[in-house]
Amino acid sequence: MIKIGIIGAGRIGKVHAKSAAGVKGVEIKAIADPFMNAETEAWAKEQDIPNVYTDYHEILNDKEIEVVLICSSTDTHSKISLEAIEAGKHIFCEKPIDHDVNKIKEVMEALKKSNVKYQVGFNRRFDHNFMAAREAVKQGKIGELNVLKVCSRDPGAPPVSYIKVSGGIFLDMTIHDFDMVRFMSGAEVTEVYAMGGVLVDPAIGEAGDIDTAVISMRLDNGALAVIDNCRRATYGYDQRVEAFGSLGQVAIGNDTDSLAVISNADGVTAEKPKLFFLERYMEAYTREVASFIDAVINDKPTEVNVEDGLKPVLIGLAAKLSLAENRPVKIAEIEAKFGL
Amino acid sequence: MIKIGIIGAGRIGKVHAKSAAGVKGVEIKAIADPFMNAETEAWAKEQDIPNVYTDYHEILNDKEIEVVLICSSTDTHSKISLEAIEAGKHIFCEKPIDHDVNKIKEVMEALKKSNVKYQVGFNRRFDHNFMAAREAVKQGKIGELNVLKVCSRDPGAPPVSYIKVSGGIFLDMTIHDFDMVRFMSGAEVTEVYAMGGVLVDPAIGEAGDIDTAVISMRLDNGALAVIDNCRRATYGYDQRVEAFGSLGQVAIGNDTDSLAVISNADGVTAEKPKLFFLERYMEAYTREVASFIDAVINDKPTEVNVEDGLKPVLIGLAAKLSLAENRPVKIAEIEAKFGL
Amino acid sequence: MIKIGIIGAGRIGKVHAKSAAGVKGVEIKAIADPFMNAETEAWAKEQDIPNVYTDYHEILNDKEIEVVLICSSTDTHSKISLEAIEAGKHIFCEKPIDHDVNKIKEVMEALKKSNVKYQVGFNRRFDHNFMAAREAVKQGKIGELNVLKVCSRDPGAPPVSYIKVSGGIFLDMTIHDFDMVRFMSGAEVTEVYAMGGVLVDPAIGEAGDIDTAVISMRLDNGALAVIDNCRRATYGYDQRVEAFGSLGQVAIGNDTDSLAVISNADGVTAEKPKLFFLERYMEAYTREVASFIDAVINDKPTEVNVEDGLKPVLIGLAAKLSLAENRPVKIAEIEAKFGL
Amino acid sequence: MIKIGIIGAGRIGKVHAKSAAGVKGVEIKAIADPFMNAETEAWAKEQDIPNVYTDYHEILNDKEIEVVLICSSTDTHSKISLEAIEAGKHIFCEKPIDHDVNKIKEVMEALKKSNVKYQVGFNRRFDHNFMAAREAVKQGKIGELNVLKVCSRDPGAPPVSYIKVSGGIFLDMTIHDFDMVRFMSGAEVTEVYAMGGVLVDPAIGEAGDIDTAVISMRLDNGALAVIDNCRRATYGYDQRVEAFGSLGQVAIGNDTDSLAVISNADGVTAEKPKLFFLERYMEAYTREVASFIDAVINDKPTEVNVEDGLKPVLIGLAAKLSLAENRPVKIAEIEAKFGL
Repeated sequence: MIKIGIIGAGRIGKVHAKSAAGVKGVEIKAIADPFMNAETEAWAKEQDIPNVYTDYHEILNDKEIEVVLICSSTDTHSKISLEAIEAGKHIFCEKPIDHDVNKIKEVMEALKKSNVKYQVGFNRRFDHNFMAAREAVKQGKIGELNVLKVCSRDPGAPPVSYIKVSGGIFLDMTIHDFDMVRFMSGAEVTEVYAMGGVLVDPAIGEAGDIDTAVISMRLDNGALAVIDNCRRATYGYDQRVEAFGSLGQVAIGNDTDSLAVISNADGVTAEKPKLFFLERYMEAYTREVASFIDAVINDKPTEVNVEDGLKPVLIGLAAKLSLAENRPVKIAEIEAKFGL
Repeated sequence: MIKIGIIGAGRIGKVHAKSAAGVKGVEIKAIADPFMNAETEAWAKEQDIPNVYTDYHEILNDKEIEVVLICSSTDTHSKISLEAIEAGKHIFCEKPIDHDVNKIKEVMEALKKSNVKYQVGFNRRFDHNFMAAREAVKQGKIGELNVLKVCSRDPGAPPVSYIKVSGGIFLDMTIHDFDMVRFMSGAEVTEVYAMGGVLVDPAIGEAGDIDTAVISMRLDNGALAVIDNCRRATYGYDQRVEAFGSLGQVAIGNDTDSLAVISNADGVTAEKPKLFFLERYMEAYTREVASFIDAVINDKPTEVNVEDGLKPVLIGLAAKLSLAENRPVKIAEIEAKFGL
Repeated sequence: MIKIGIIGAGRIGKVHAKSAAGVKGVEIKAIADPFMNAETEAWAKEQDIPNVYTDYHEILNDKEIEVVLICSSTDTHSKISLEAIEAGKHIFCEKPIDHDVNKIKEVMEALKKSNVKYQVGFNRRFDHNFMAAREAVKQGKIGELNVLKVCSRDPGAPPVSYIKVSGGIFLDMTIHDFDMVRFMSGAEVTEVYAMGGVLVDPAIGEAGDIDTAVISMRLDNGALAVIDNCRRATYGYDQRVEAFGSLGQVAIGNDTDSLAVISNADGVTAEKPKLFFLERYMEAYTREVASFIDAVINDKPTEVNVEDGLKPVLIGLAAKLSLAENRPVKIAEIEAKFGL
Repeated sequence: MIKIGIIGAGRIGKVHAKSAAGVKGVEIKAIADPFMNAETEAWAKEQDIPNVYTDYHEILNDKEIEVVLICSSTDTHSKISLEAIEAGKHIFCEKPIDHDVNKIKEVMEALKKSNVKYQVGFNRRFDHNFMAAREAVKQGKIGELNVLKVCSRDPGAPPVSYIKVSGGIFLDMTIHDFDMVRFMSGAEVTEVYAMGGVLVDPAIGEAGDIDTAVISMRLDNGALAVIDNCRRATYGYDQRVEAFGSLGQVAIGNDTDSLAVISNADGVTAEKPKLFFLERYMEAYTREVASFIDAVINDKPTEVNVEDGLKPVLIGLAAKLSLAENRPVKIAEIEAKFGL
């Protein structure tokens, strides 16, 4: 039995606890959260998690615990990652590792000197639809990739208080889409041009961010890619991808609660996409944790490594600079800043 | 130039005039209608139809006219067919030839002794969707046919005055679907069982008819078929077919005015099927007349012959008897009544 | 904690064990199977099921066990049901209760004198698509139901050895569809006419059964219904429903592994329906067991009661008689035979 | 009867002749083409076009002819437009008016001093799908427009000889999409950034052009727009639009020859989009000519005026410059060059 400790008992910590509990050969030994309260303790008891801490160091110090899931707030990811590497734990870390590339570099350096597994929480790679599209591209069903289109719209904008500390739309929301560009294409982004606007809520603009964007990219395999984002879609969580190539196209749609279609005098109406990301990606969350534990147990590379955690941050910073200066920005320009 | 005369200047007569006018090598020389009026005369002038009659015999007596399109009221179809055969004209006759099998037999006998072409107006055989499904079946794409399903619903019921003289739902509406069963399967119906109800309008029941039906059939190739009918569908003209076989299934949907799909808080809504049969089948009407004239010009068999006009009437009569006596009825039983 | 015993450790027994294990407040105390073997014992251990028996009476005699799930072979369902009622256990019984109506009557009688909950395993009622269609009908979105169409095709026929003891297609396969007719319509079937054929495998015919059928039905609310069945569909498990009424139609499609659509020179290709019933209905199996346990814990009526277990058997027997004698058969005729 | 002259008897000239012939109150009096040959003369005879010329001035000099359709080669459009304005003819001119903005300006100047109607051949505005999407946007069904996506892919690249004189992809192919951006949004493009690549055929690159592009745009209503182009799509002519706004989204798909869907062991396959632009847009060509003649007869503004002919050329030139210098280009910068 592999013993696991979960750091962070918020929404995503609880989701991962449930996923981990469903994996064979795994036992969740402890969960830690600085804001641990009676409700969370009751929840932990119900999940048969025997130890509940406010200080995550108790988990890091527990020699029996081989694996940690870092589900704490974003600003603590890199710090806890470093401590966990030091403690020799295998690490699943929620995305992003950090908004500061230098801190990600520190984690990368530490990992090089260590033997621990490290996986970053880009859950969308484990979604059945995105996986099917990726498989089609990988198997050559569309031939050489020419144009990759990623559409990503949230059902509604988060509170402005969150926006302010989010790192901006490119590091907070588009980061998943940058990951999707890399995942779907199997290529690296070399240049970015971002256009954006404040079309959903002026308060987002006052907070120094945008809420709507179109980002075009060149990839190192010659293909072009484009992402369009919006913080609000009335019809639900809209996340699609369309990969077009020399032999054809693969496209994916949005999951719905059912396939019921009603025909009446108003038209022929299907259900709208699922509204809540936890509902939409629950299966993906389960699969990513299972994949990580499989990598630990069977000593395989993790499916989303620290490099995969770094790259979307670089692209996001390039997009940020592109928007600020209204010019295309090469990823190499960002890398140079950080000596990469 | 082949000269054509059109008998009947109602809605369908005008539709066929337009179709015929578009066929190369054809000239419409005359149109006849007992209720000819100023409006129709003006219309004829606009279409460059030089002769307008109230008595169709003027058309039959015109030696220059080689082809007639019989678009008059149903009760005159067989009589005019016989006269036109006698006059040596090639004939396109609107469906049904007659509700009385004996009269259809007379037409068949007359045709045997003559060399004229005869086509019955089952337009749906010329619709792009039904044609595509038929081609798939014919080319073996679904293997051996096992189950054929025909769904046929009108947007709204005709006036009860029409229902009363219509011959009943099976001879008026389902007759097209019986034709589709034969067309799609390339097989003959051998037995019928009909269930029906008055679910749309009690006045239809009072007129001695039903407005909703489910009709199951055995075909002579072993396959099963089922039609479901209703006189009213709020969402438009619903005419679909699903042919299922040993290798798979082919299904067709309903044409819409556009492919626009609107996603909003209410769902994901496509347009409803076209509402009006003339709009839906305009292309099919054009194609059937072109096909008929092609058969005349190039001396080929017509695509829908007098046999194809007879068979659905026999199936319709079997369905009528089945409903009346609540038992399956073999087509042979109906044929025997008429010495067929 | 409610303690559960599972009788039968075959495929469906294991599925229900997994579902039950996921329900809060439930503990599986024992599982019994006459063919218990090392593999199943190892499986039970892995599931934390402490007791493994070959004789299910050990479960019935265990006073701590309040609930039993009967997942044994069909011919034992009614006998074990009776014993379990006698022992005062709440019962979830796989469908069908029995092919012999008299035995179902015995179970019904026993239940009347007892206070135990009884649920029959019609899992399809708990499928997200069928539930959505049912909700649409129930909420009046299609108005008054006029025509209900159920399409049900298996990916492939079971072995002929199974066919021989299955009770025939109507009691083995169509029974689920008869249940769907009742579930979707909220009405009772009053008359049945069945047409069938042996189109998949002659060996099925030699075993005295058919493999393809079209069954039409009258319902006591005036609506018509039709089921089409086939034991083989090359493209997967095809289970759809289309409910048509005075205000419109609701239809459901088949779940697929992903929504990926590939466009190339061959066409625009979506995935075929899921191929395996366990995969397709896993969620429904989970939901039905949860619903049953909820009924037990909160003392509510079960969602599929013994009456719901009886009715489809009566309709199936009517269909069997209809096919044998090629005539419509009233359900009342079958009921009369059994003094119902 | 309005008398029409057609200048240019190539493919599109013949298409427009057919469309014009179908409009009431119209008579095609003459057609002119410098390469007039026996085949085209025969075709003209068949269409009842009495006069056939090699010199289009014969049409311009014919006082009876009130309307001309300019369907000659692109490099003659502006010159003939000027002569036709001078001659007082109403003009339908194929797109583009010219690749040289100064020449378009001359046409604009001449039109200001004249009373003739002028329509530019952006046929896609008259396509039933694009019209339906436009209507949805116009009627506020998606609220305020936020992001407009236009996908436009040709089934195959034209010969390199054509590419060389085409003016480049942005003025030859994307020009239609720039028009669609203006049509769908009802707004003006203010800035463009274009990324491109040679991914279809190196010979296109050697000819100094690209074959694949992603173009992002800012609109003066604040919305963002993006076009993706490719000269080759194996699955047919792919022309879609997706307009996303504060209340939802409207999207259109591609017309197919039929709605037949085949399900088998390989998947669930619909037909691919229509392959040929004449087939796809035949209805739109008919509608645009009818609309133009309606504007002439009823003295209404044309639906696509000379301004609509100019603007996409300016956007195309901006895109060209953007690609060449790899920077966003404001439309104002292009306008300034031409004193606009």
